[in-house]
Amino acid sequence: MKIIIEKDFEAMSETAKNILLGCMSQDKRINLSITAGNTPVGVYKSMIEIVKDSPNYTNVHYYNFDEIPVTDQAEGITITDLRKLYFTPANINEANIHPLTVENYAQQDRRLAMDGGLDAMLIGLGGDGHFCGNMPTTTSFENLTYKVKVSGEEPWFVPDMMEKGLEFVTMGPVSVMRVKHLILIVNGKKKAEMVKNVLQGPVTEEYPASVLQLHPNFTVILDEEAASKLDR
Amino acid sequence: MKIIIEKDFEAMSETAKNILLGCMSQDKRINLSITAGNTPVGVYKSMIEIVKDSPNYTNVHYYNFDEIPVTDQAEGITITDLRKLYFTPANINEANIHPLTVENYAQQDRRLAMDGGLDAMLIGLGGDGHFCGNMPTTTSFENLTYKVKVSGEEPWFVPDMMEKGLEFVTMGPVSVMRVKHLILIVNGKKKAEMVKNVLQGPVTEEYPASVLQLHPNFTVILDEEAASKLDR
Amino acid sequence: MKIIIEKDFEAMSETAKNILLGCMSQDKRINLSITAGNTPVGVYKSMIEIVKDSPNYTNVHYYNFDEIPVTDQAEGITITDLRKLYFTPANINEANIHPLTVENYAQQDRRLAMDGGLDAMLIGLGGDGHFCGNMPTTTSFENLTYKVKVSGEEPWFVPDMMEKGLEFVTMGPVSVMRVKHLILIVNGKKKAEMVKNVLQGPVTEEYPASVLQLHPNFTVILDEEAASKLDR
Amino acid sequence: MKIIIEKDFEAMSETAKNILLGCMSQDKRINLSITAGNTPVGVYKSMIEIVKDSPNYTNVHYYNFDEIPVTDQAEGITITDLRKLYFTPANINEANIHPLTVENYAQQDRRLAMDGGLDAMLIGLGGDGHFCGNMPTTTSFENLTYKVKVSGEEPWFVPDMMEKGLEFVTMGPVSVMRVKHLILIVNGKKKAEMVKNVLQGPVTEEYPASVLQLHPNFTVILDEEAASKLDR
Repeated sequence: MKIIIEKDFEAMSETAKNILLGCMSQDKRINLSITAGNTPVGVYKSMIEIVKDSPNYTNVHYYNFDEIPVTDQAEGITITDLRKLYFTPANINEANIHPLTVENYAQQDRRLAMDGGLDAMLIGLGGDGHFCGNMPTTTSFENLTYKVKVSGEEPWFVPDMMEKGLEFVTMGPVSVMRVKHLILIVNGKKKAEMVKNVLQGPVTEEYPASVLQLHPNFTVILDEEAASKLDR
Repeated sequence: MKIIIEKDFEAMSETAKNILLGCMSQDKRINLSITAGNTPVGVYKSMIEIVKDSPNYTNVHYYNFDEIPVTDQAEGITITDLRKLYFTPANINEANIHPLTVENYAQQDRRLAMDGGLDAMLIGLGGDGHFCGNMPTTTSFENLTYKVKVSGEEPWFVPDMMEKGLEFVTMGPVSVMRVKHLILIVNGKKKAEMVKNVLQGPVTEEYPASVLQLHPNFTVILDEEAASKLDR
Repeated sequence: MKIIIEKDFEAMSETAKNILLGCMSQDKRINLSITAGNTPVGVYKSMIEIVKDSPNYTNVHYYNFDEIPVTDQAEGITITDLRKLYFTPANINEANIHPLTVENYAQQDRRLAMDGGLDAMLIGLGGDGHFCGNMPTTTSFENLTYKVKVSGEEPWFVPDMMEKGLEFVTMGPVSVMRVKHLILIVNGKKKAEMVKNVLQGPVTEEYPASVLQLHPNFTVILDEEAASKLDR
Repeated sequence: MKIIIEKDFEAMSETAKNILLGCMSQDKRINLSITAGNTPVGVYKSMIEIVKDSPNYTNVHYYNFDEIPVTDQAEGITITDLRKLYFTPANINEANIHPLTVENYAQQDRRLAMDGGLDAMLIGLGGDGHFCGNMPTTTSFENLTYKVKVSGEEPWFVPDMMEKGLEFVTMGPVSVMRVKHLILIVNGKKKAEMVKNVLQGPVTEEYPASVLQLHPNFTVILDEEAASKLDR
């Protein structure tokens, strides 16, 4: 594990962008899995400027790592958000986007293996210690990509996004461990305690992201606030 | 995880030998970590025939992954056994042997990183679910190479080999996860139940080898007896 | 370049087989390109025993690296020979065989990139210094996979196999340089002089295989006769 | 080969910097070889801001790829220039700098192999088609790191820098082919013709950099002027 502490959100975003672009600039197919949400907004903003309409990154293929289906919508929450944040403004060719869905999740690990594996994955950290869709109470470390049925009594239950009985899918710990370079970005004071728990505490399913300490090529990029409780 | 089931001990040994020789035959420095004990005896026997006095494998460097010091002896149990089983009969150059000891263990992970990392590691499985020196009751998944002080009350206590207060060292789960190709060999009916526990059961520190399910390039070679309780 | 000299054809074949099986035993998709002809007969004979009907090598995909079409035949000389020597007796699943043809050669390099690249390639050496279909007088080092139109006046013209105007296809020097592990097998006294030329002489299009000296992970396996003119 | 064309020197420098920092941000030892001269000035300027006094890049080791000794000076032209351009302003730890010299050049390839190989190399292009110290009239493609004795009649003879009888050393084509990611930066109209020659012309020792077309992971970054004569 390599921890890079940057002074603020912008510097964190810049460093993550550099890592992704460095990987994408190689002379071979590159498979990337990238996160939706608020944390990567700065990363994508500067990537779009470089990638948009560029002939230089057509070798890059994109995979989402989790998905929550939405009733009456063709696509789920994650891919919809990724389109808005990055794929659409960067004009990514549809043939380079490989959605994970509730329908195809059982083929995800095999498909990735067939495509040569993921070269890099950019993830965030949940305030409850989750990564991808690996939540407290529903994560088993021995899982590949799997489906979770929400009971409605989970500690992380989000009423307006999920209903009782909803199912979502996520790449599991075993799937994520196979990524050649794993990059975690976290910012803000609110997550400082959880950053310490998952990076310097025991590996436990209670805080699923703690398992990432076992990843063989894991770069963590924090802003000063998120790093403020770490033992240095 | 890829599970290869061979008909017997000889076939298991042959397949493990092929994997190691294939790796060693590359045109670059190769760093190997190999296990002592009874399980690899057949592997080393056929490797010695090929490697002994050969100019073809001088690019291979060897590292032991655990060590138990012995009072009044210059070298510990593991390296002494490896010398007997392989290094001495194969005439391995002393400069290519890099012992891990109770004195230098704190530098082991950094040294391996400096040397370019381990290309392959051959391990066995303990009847109690241990791998390397990662024993039930003393293993934490977040460990790099570490030292254990034996209390004498461990379930795996071996009276004639260890005394109360003895210390030994081992590469930990995080260290092993960094190996580029991890190879586990297990034979015999006595270990069939534990093989099932660690390969198809939950990842738990109770059976330390269960964590290996998370390794990104993990080949398991079993004889039919060791595989007899697996769900197929 | 790593040169391994074995005492005879059997030992040469055994070492090549070990390298291929070692690679194939990994826990990921493996893309192999293997040669037709007489030199690999011993390699395939022992591989078939291990691979036939085995569930352990379904992760392996096969690609031929050159092809000579035959009038009135659905498949060309190379793939027909590979089927006879290995694919058919080893019961390789048709879905794991990816023929290169005169029709699809222009997509070969892109297809390989999309599939994650070749992990290993086994090749032989022509008595005239050719490798794959890279012949003296028709090879340019800057070539990816390309098509050659035979004029009938080539020094290597083989009357019963090729006619004037025939076209064949081959992966070029640039394509071969991208293979992660390149393995060359050569046996017999007749090729000893050419072995010296291509491995210890200048890199020149006159002896196309001389360019392989530039490959970053190149293992050469020779029997004593083929190695007899090398400076040691 | 992947060609990235940027609008100007700044954009070219920015992209090269991203690739290097992306590589350096991994959680393992990284071995870099970087070029002296004018072309990389912009790359180093922005790298220094990020790397200087940072704890995040202590895993990076530096190697020069050629050297010209200077009478009465402890260090040669290349390393002296690299110190001025980057090592000194970036406060790189002396233990992370591994000079190539006329004295130690014969060990360079073995040393690099022992250290795990070069992860990336940043090079420039000479107006005469040279790369590193591989000059027209003195380059043989089959060379590892080698020493050149200047006769004084070379077409590229630079009177104020070299004298008749001077010796210099350089990593050769075979050494450079082993680098995991090769990055070439070129800017300016004056080199446009040579850029076309070496990237789209035949592989020939007359223009030594033409051999780089054979590199398996080669990224070329040009400004618009340097790219102005390329067939697109």
